[in-house]
Amino acid sequence: MQQFELTNEFLAKLEEIINAKDKEGASKIVETLHPADIAEILEELDNKQAQFLFLLLDNELAGDVLAELEEDERKRFIESFPPEIIAKRFIDNMDSDDAADLVGSMSDEQQHEVLSHIEDLEQAGDIVDLLHYDEDTAGGLMGKELVAVNENWTVLTCLRELSRQAENIGEIFYVYVVDDDNVLKGRLSLKKMILSPTSTKINKLYNPDVIFVNTDETAESVGRIMQKYDLVAIPVVDSIGRLVGRITIDDVVDVIREEAEKDYHMMSGITQDVESSDTIWDQTKARLPWLIIGLFGGMLAAYMISFYQADIALFPATAMFIPVITAMGGNVGIQSSAIVVKGLASNSLGVKNIFQNIIKEIGGALINATICSSIIFVLTLCFNMNSFAMPLTVTISLFTVIIFASLFGTAFPLLLNRINIDPALATGPFITLTNDIIGLNIYLFIGKLILAELL
Amino acid sequence: MQQFELTNEFLAKLEEIINAKDKEGASKIVETLHPADIAEILEELDNKQAQFLFLLLDNELAGDVLAELEEDERKRFIESFPPEIIAKRFIDNMDSDDAADLVGSMSDEQQHEVLSHIEDLEQAGDIVDLLHYDEDTAGGLMGKELVAVNENWTVLTCLRELSRQAENIGEIFYVYVVDDDNVLKGRLSLKKMILSPTSTKINKLYNPDVIFVNTDETAESVGRIMQKYDLVAIPVVDSIGRLVGRITIDDVVDVIREEAEKDYHMMSGITQDVESSDTIWDQTKARLPWLIIGLFGGMLAAYMISFYQADIALFPATAMFIPVITAMGGNVGIQSSAIVVKGLASNSLGVKNIFQNIIKEIGGALINATICSSIIFVLTLCFNMNSFAMPLTVTISLFTVIIFASLFGTAFPLLLNRINIDPALATGPFITLTNDIIGLNIYLFIGKLILAELL
Repeated sequence: MQQFELTNEFLAKLEEIINAKDKEGASKIVETLHPADIAEILEELDNKQAQFLFLLLDNELAGDVLAELEEDERKRFIESFPPEIIAKRFIDNMDSDDAADLVGSMSDEQQHEVLSHIEDLEQAGDIVDLLHYDEDTAGGLMGKELVAVNENWTVLTCLRELSRQAENIGEIFYVYVVDDDNVLKGRLSLKKMILSPTSTKINKLYNPDVIFVNTDETAESVGRIMQKYDLVAIPVVDSIGRLVGRITIDDVVDVIREEAEKDYHMMSGITQDVESSDTIWDQTKARLPWLIIGLFGGMLAAYMISFYQADIALFPATAMFIPVITAMGGNVGIQSSAIVVKGLASNSLGVKNIFQNIIKEIGGALINATICSSIIFVLTLCFNMNSFAMPLTVTISLFTVIIFASLFGTAFPLLLNRINIDPALATGPFITLTNDIIGLNIYLFIGKLILAELL
Repeated sequence: MQQFELTNEFLAKLEEIINAKDKEGASKIVETLHPADIAEILEELDNKQAQFLFLLLDNELAGDVLAELEEDERKRFIESFPPEIIAKRFIDNMDSDDAADLVGSMSDEQQHEVLSHIEDLEQAGDIVDLLHYDEDTAGGLMGKELVAVNENWTVLTCLRELSRQAENIGEIFYVYVVDDDNVLKGRLSLKKMILSPTSTKINKLYNPDVIFVNTDETAESVGRIMQKYDLVAIPVVDSIGRLVGRITIDDVVDVIREEAEKDYHMMSGITQDVESSDTIWDQTKARLPWLIIGLFGGMLAAYMISFYQADIALFPATAMFIPVITAMGGNVGIQSSAIVVKGLASNSLGVKNIFQNIIKEIGGALINATICSSIIFVLTLCFNMNSFAMPLTVTISLFTVIIFASLFGTAFPLLLNRINIDPALATGPFITLTNDIIGLNIYLFIGKLILAELL
């Protein structure tokens, strides 16, 4: 199966079939597709068309498609069905982690009603268990579907148990080994089990070096661990080491991607996840807050400059270099913050001393500042001013602004991190703004001092 | 095994043991660790210490550790060993994809010598095959280690063949099914094989819906496909459909992360991958080029303003609003570009018409511009200017700048993408710069028109 590509032609054809209420034709088109492709198609259709198509799917496929939908889409989509249908047609057939996410996004009342309609009591119990965990922890990410065998069993017992347990599980990546109290002891590769005599005891076969996480480990940290150790699945244990679930890499890939996107959006001054396909209003809601903050910051800058109006009237050339000073401060600050934020995110800043980092940043700042100020000194001389006062002012100011912005850009995210605020906040318009205002003051103040000497 | 955490204390203790040349003590510490942890430790040690520790590892572990090292570290590290040792001690024990990456990073001469020393001819052949592919394609990412069975075999033959093939393979996730010409026909889950009678023919068991990629698929696109379909491994075929390799999710997670980081760095004005642990000089090399471009841009802005010096001398308040105009242009531009860049990266901009997107951006820009200009009109009035001229100038300019920056921020990355330049380039200092200069001109020009009316 070559992967499917959603084209405008395909969509137009499908819409035509749906609008003609041709159930058979529509079924024929979607039944060969992967759930992820069907989800992609549903997101492009309007709600009525999507419902028509969705109701043609069999229960299991419907559950898979639901799990593939983006969270907002899913919520909007689900709301159009009664609780009983949601429970019986969808939740019974979903993986417990996806089902818990879905139920968790409902109101308390709706949750109650949906849960009461679930026929598979084990599934209902798993969902209730999973709802207890915070969304951003290992407990919130994990699913209950896993294959566990007792260390005292033989390979034969395991194979039997496997065929019993495996029915509800899509793919088995690892078989986990537990003791009589369900405490995680190790893992067993299917390969090893297949290749051993059936009378072998599991405790002779399993690998005790199993990497696991606790239910309260953060999602970010789970992602880091799975990436570092190249794991496709990781077992989750409770506070006394009992095996309670497993997390698969596909859920973690989403966390990794979302984490990266969040930082990216923060830096670009967008307050929430927006996509080019969102409505104008959603995009505006995400963008406007930062713009308004930027606006007030800019007015603060204007207020600062107003104190120097007399100087500017006397030396209008002062105005010429306002943009270069503010832009350079902003650029340097963002660079410094971005390096720190990435360092904190990848944990590579952990071992090294923070003080050491600031010393290094000062070193780098001195190099950048020296080179940039030398260049600007020569460039301002080319403007053929009547005296050295203006080039000198610009050069000294730029030097000071670069040093300051480097330090501030480094220290501020570290400070935010220390007080448990997301350090990525320091890479957005906020740091540009602060650097603008402080840089401006440095420039105008130095200008006043130097130009006053002249008069 | 709880995951290992590298602390300063641990490092100090280990360095002490290494400096005392205590082979036994050092072996004892590292032999219980995961290859990824040992790699992390090696990166913190100096070259001599790292070599001492590395030579204590047995061949297989050494190969695994090497595969976990970061590319730069690995290269530097490898260079200190003679080709024969590299071939026999390391490459023979690495996965073919990691081995090919390592050999590919050497000079032609070194490659030749190392390859001639590899004892496992199959491994040498695999590496030579893999070296043909471009690093950023599926061919460059794939490894040769996979388990393939013929569709005409029985489960029993498969199990035998599996135990033969599986020796060299760490984990089996899927068994691929091929025909007599090695053309990929489908996949078989281990679960299904375990649970079927041994006399069953494979062609009764396998799932023909297998998602695969061609060797020349880009790494980005492989990542997108594996994410979308939640795959832990994907088979790679050549142009006539023959199975030639497989890509595992851990290699793709790295691609996804690097891709996100590249965009992040681009936006923060850093030209290459830098980390907080890099040397001052490496960091400066990555940062200075953008700063110098920013500097020249700023000087261009200064040159533009110089034409309006007479106006500024007359109305020094003009200077007050330069920062707010440039900052708002920059902020709006980055937001617009970031949305487009992410849209292009996630392919969600593919189906929708590009023209439609620009129309939508104009709509959003009108809302943002109207709200922001209304606010700035009120705020400038608070400054208690003598006339409406200045507030009017600032308001009209801001409105125009927001509309322009939105359009430019949307259109520019689309244009870059069309001519096959990475659109993320449009989110960096470059777009801020352009918006600064154009915004400034709009502001000063409108100011001149309005203020001229007054005189």
